[in-house]
Amino acid sequence: MTQAIATEKTPTKPTFSKLVSKDGGIEYEAKALYVCEETFSPLEVAYDYDVIRAQVSRESIEAGPNSIWRYRPFLPVATDNVIDVGTGMTPLVKSQRLARRLGLKNLYIKNDAVNMPTLSFKDRVVSVALSRARELGFTTVSCASTGNLANSTAAIAAHAGLDCCVFIPSDLEAGKVLGTLIYNPTVMAVKGNYDQVNRLCSEVANSYGWGFVNINLRPYYSEGSKTLGFEVAEQLGWKLPDHIVAPIASGSLYTKIYKGFQEFIKVGLVEDKPVRFSGAQAEGCSPVAQAFKAGRDFITPVKPNTIAKSIAIGNPADGMYAVEQAQKTGGTIESATDAEIVEGIKLLAETEGIFTETAGGTTIAVLKKLVEAGKIDPDETTVVYITGNGLKTQEAVQGCIGEPLTIDAKLDSFERAWERAQTLERLDWQPVLV
Amino acid sequence: MTQAIATEKTPTKPTFSKLVSKDGGIEYEAKALYVCEETFSPLEVAYDYDVIRAQVSRESIEAGPNSIWRYRPFLPVATDNVIDVGTGMTPLVKSQRLARRLGLKNLYIKNDAVNMPTLSFKDRVVSVALSRARELGFTTVSCASTGNLANSTAAIAAHAGLDCCVFIPSDLEAGKVLGTLIYNPTVMAVKGNYDQVNRLCSEVANSYGWGFVNINLRPYYSEGSKTLGFEVAEQLGWKLPDHIVAPIASGSLYTKIYKGFQEFIKVGLVEDKPVRFSGAQAEGCSPVAQAFKAGRDFITPVKPNTIAKSIAIGNPADGMYAVEQAQKTGGTIESATDAEIVEGIKLLAETEGIFTETAGGTTIAVLKKLVEAGKIDPDETTVVYITGNGLKTQEAVQGCIGEPLTIDAKLDSFERAWERAQTLERLDWQPVLV
Repeated sequence: MTQAIATEKTPTKPTFSKLVSKDGGIEYEAKALYVCEETFSPLEVAYDYDVIRAQVSRESIEAGPNSIWRYRPFLPVATDNVIDVGTGMTPLVKSQRLARRLGLKNLYIKNDAVNMPTLSFKDRVVSVALSRARELGFTTVSCASTGNLANSTAAIAAHAGLDCCVFIPSDLEAGKVLGTLIYNPTVMAVKGNYDQVNRLCSEVANSYGWGFVNINLRPYYSEGSKTLGFEVAEQLGWKLPDHIVAPIASGSLYTKIYKGFQEFIKVGLVEDKPVRFSGAQAEGCSPVAQAFKAGRDFITPVKPNTIAKSIAIGNPADGMYAVEQAQKTGGTIESATDAEIVEGIKLLAETEGIFTETAGGTTIAVLKKLVEAGKIDPDETTVVYITGNGLKTQEAVQGCIGEPLTIDAKLDSFERAWERAQTLERLDWQPVLV
Repeated sequence: MTQAIATEKTPTKPTFSKLVSKDGGIEYEAKALYVCEETFSPLEVAYDYDVIRAQVSRESIEAGPNSIWRYRPFLPVATDNVIDVGTGMTPLVKSQRLARRLGLKNLYIKNDAVNMPTLSFKDRVVSVALSRARELGFTTVSCASTGNLANSTAAIAAHAGLDCCVFIPSDLEAGKVLGTLIYNPTVMAVKGNYDQVNRLCSEVANSYGWGFVNINLRPYYSEGSKTLGFEVAEQLGWKLPDHIVAPIASGSLYTKIYKGFQEFIKVGLVEDKPVRFSGAQAEGCSPVAQAFKAGRDFITPVKPNTIAKSIAIGNPADGMYAVEQAQKTGGTIESATDAEIVEGIKLLAETEGIFTETAGGTTIAVLKKLVEAGKIDPDETTVVYITGNGLKTQEAVQGCIGEPLTIDAKLDSFERAWERAQTLERLDWQPVLV
C-alpha cells in the first residue's frame, strides 16, 4: 500500500548483516533463525550504529514517509522495497480530560488504536516481518496469534500478495476472528490457549517452509516495536519522556520501546536521560507482575483466565527481560482485574474519545493504580501506550455500558425520554437519601 | 486531542463572515442557521477567496499539521482554537492487486476506513462542526445519524468535554450502537428509519438550544467533506484525478469533493481540468441513481431496504445537486445489490488488505460495474473513496466468508486440516468433472 506520492529512494548501505545471540554474542547469518543453537538464547539483529549514524539526522527522518519507514535504517530490511501500508506515526495525544481526572499535568497517550491498516500496534511488527520475509524468499507467511497479530498478518499478506495461514486459540473474540477471515487466509482455530498455539506453531515452523512472523522471523518482527519508542521521542520534540506505561504480554513490546530510546541516544538523535518503565498485565494472566512483585529472577508460567485475551500469554518469552528493565529503570509492573479493565476502557473513552480494547483498558487501569499509589509524579512527562481498538473486543464491555433510550419518532416521546434521562443523571450524582 | 507538537499558530484574518442561500444569494449571519427563510434553499458558507489566496500556498499547507486543519483557511472556523483529533490525511493508496483484478492501470483508494478517531469520513465533518459549535457557544451537541456520525459526534464531544445526545434508528448494527455508547452520551434509538429520525431532530433543533451537527450546523459541518477533495489533490502531487467514484447518501460528500477541487483551482493550487464524478448507491435505497437513470429533475423519495444502512437515506437533501453534478461532469450514478455489496467488501479485503463497511462495499461494487460497462477508461487516474470501517458492520459479512478450521494443539491434527484445506482449494479452482 505505497503512499501515492513516495519520496524517491536511493539505495543505501545496509545497516545490519547478521544475527547474534542475546546472551553470548554468537553470530549467525541474517536468515530465518531465532534461537542460538549453543545457548538457546534468542537471536537479535546486530546493527552497525556507525553506518546508521551516517545515514540519519532529525531532518532526514522528518523528511521521510509518514509511517514507520521514516526510521528505515534502524529496521532489519536490506532493500528499499518495503511493504508500506501507512503503518505508524499514530497520534501522540496530550491528554486534557483524563489527565485532569487522574491529577496528572503532563500525560500523553500514544494511540495505536488507530494504527493502519488493522488498528493495533501489531501492524508495525508485521510490516517489518513481511518485508523481511519477502527479502528472504518466503511465499507463505504465518503466525501464532491472540487475535490482533492474525488480523495484521492476514491483511498485510493480502496487500502484498503472499499466501497466509494463521493460528489462533479457538475461543477468541468474534471481531478478531471475522477481522482475520475477511482477508481470506487459512485460519487454524486451535483448541487450547495461546501458549499451546505457540508450541504447535514452533513444530510447524520446523517442518514447513513458512515464514512465521513471531517464530522464525521473530528477530526481525520484534524490531518493529522500536518504532513506538522512536515516534514518541520525535513527537515529544526529540526528547525522551520521564515515565512510560505499556502493556506486557510476551514482554517484547515493553523491552523494544526501551531499545528504541537507547538507539536514539546512541546515534545522537536525543539526549540521554533516565526513563522509568512501568508495565501492565491482567490479573488473570500476570506472570511478569508476579515475578516483579516477588523479586524473583524467574517467571512461573500461569494458565490465562482473563478477558484481556490479546495480552494473555502465560509463558512470556521476554518476561524476565521485562522484570529486569522495570527494576533497573525504577518502574513498576502492576496488574488489573477484569472489572478494572472494563472501567479503564470506559474511562479512556469518556474522557478522551478513544475506544480501546482490553489491553488498553488494562494499561489505563494500571496507570490509575500507579498514580493512586504515588508511583507516578504529577509533573512527570508520562506516556501511556494504547495498543489496540475496542471495536475488536466488543464482548468485553457489552452489558457494562449504558443503553439507548428507545423512543417513537415523535417530539413528545423524545421529551419524556429526555426528562427521564435527566432525572436519572441527577440521581446518579445526588442520590436521594431514604 | 491536540498533537503533541503543534506548530505555533498565528491568528489570521477570517476567510468567511456570512452564510448565503444556495439559490438566491440572500445573506445571513454566520450563526446556527441552515435554511433560507425566503426561498427554503440551503445556506452555505460564503468565503472571501482573495483572503484565502493570500494565506495559502502548497508550501504553507505542506508545513501544516498532519490533519484536515492544514486546510484551515478553507474551513468555516473563525479562530485557531480548533478541535484537532488527528482527523484526515488518511492514505491515498496506489492500488496494485485490485487494479490488476479489474484491469485498471491508475487506480487509487482514498482510505477513510482508518480515519481518526472513529474510523469513518464523518470524523472530518464532526471535527469542523464541533469546532464551530464551540465558537458559537453551544455546550450540548447532537446529530441525526445512521451510525458513523453518532460514533464520531460522541467521541469528539467526549474529547472536547461537550455534552452530547445522539439520535439513531433503532435497528442499527450492534457495533455502531456500542461504538457510540462507549463514550457515554445520551443515545435516543428512534423507532423508524433515518428520514424519520432526521425529521424528529429538526423539531428538537427548533425547541432545544443544541448544536445539531447535521441540521442547524449543517453549513459548517458539510464543509468538512471538502477535505476529501483537498487531500486527494495534494496526495496526487497537486493534481486532480480524471475520475472519482464516491458513495451517495444525502449527496453532501459527493458534491463537497467537487467543491474542494473547484476551490483549489480557484486559488491556484492546482490546474483546472475535467474530472468525472461517478456515484454509488445501494439498490435498496437508490433514489439518486434512479433519478439519474431516468433523467428526471426531481428525486422521488424511497423507503430504504438494504444492508448498507450508513448510506440508506430515502429522501436525500442534496440528491438533485448530485444528479446534476454527475450529468455535467460526464459521470454515472449506479447502484449495487446487497449481495454485490458483500462481494465488494470481500474483494477489497482480499486484494488490498482493507476491511471496509457496507458503504465501501457499495462503492467497490459500483466501481466494478462501471469498469465492466466500459464507463471507466483503464488509463484514467481513478480515485475510489472508502468511507468507513468493516469492524462496525460485521453482521453484513457473517456467514458470507470462510470459517476457521478447528484443530487440536497437535501437529498431526494440523497436518490433516491443512491437507483438507489444500484439497478444498484445488477443488475450488479446478472442479472435478462428473
